[in-house]
Amino acid sequence: MSDAAQQPVQNLGYHAHIYYDPEKTRAIAERVCAAIDEKFRVEIDGFRDGPVGPHPIANVLVVFKPDQFEHVVPYLMLNRDGLDVLVHPLTESSYDDHSKNALWLGTPVPMKLDILRPKYSESLLPSAQRQPA
Amino acid sequence: MSDAAQQPVQNLGYHAHIYYDPEKTRAIAERVCAAIDEKFRVEIDGFRDGPVGPHPIANVLVVFKPDQFEHVVPYLMLNRDGLDVLVHPLTESSYDDHSKNALWLGTPVPMKLDILRPKYSESLLPSAQRQPA
Repeated sequence: MSDAAQQPVQNLGYHAHIYYDPEKTRAIAERVCAAIDEKFRVEIDGFRDGPVGPHPIANVLVVFKPDQFEHVVPYLMLNRDGLDVLVHPLTESSYDDHSKNALWLGTPVPMKLDILRPKYSESLLPSAQRQPA
Repeated sequence: MSDAAQQPVQNLGYHAHIYYDPEKTRAIAERVCAAIDEKFRVEIDGFRDGPVGPHPIANVLVVFKPDQFEHVVPYLMLNRDGLDVLVHPLTESSYDDHSKNALWLGTPVPMKLDILRPKYSESLLPSAQRQPA
């Protein structure tokens, strides 16, 4: 058995990054996000109209806890309206999450993995997972 | 709203196609499948050591019902051991399922979409969904 199979990885939740073109498909991304926000327990972390972190193009970040995976991911499979989507877990390694742990709907977007910090900043975790202020 | 958002698509379950090289990575595929079969309610439909249908390379087919999605897909995200995996729903359109409805772990494998029949043969559905003989 591999190490991964022997040692379960702790996962605090998921990010869905919905990629869009600020001039052509932002309205589609807004519509998809509004539908997800209405239907499921997610946190829409905002639209980034340019590259942020390892993401080379514009995307909107949707944060959710593990219990929403079964709802959010099947919905996006059927209703992403042509947008490319990355879904990744929130494990101990943000590098792994954006590479070998990644799940793609549509065409994978090449990640800038070399600039990733090893840990997530707390503001990027589902809010219930953050330490009290 | 898009048509897809207005008309929910019926989905009878999922296929996970785990791709492997018959000479190099079949043992890894066997190990991953054995783990899934032990942990979750799935049906392992068999190892195909060559191209079958739209799949241009060897793969093992894992069939499961919608309620196993939340278990099988997160497990594969973290434990696919470098193998490429396609997960697709079982809707009315096998063409859509192998293209725009597809979910990929690892690197997408180009599908031979032109040879797909529009409907799934009943033997490819989760067994509980099949008509009694």
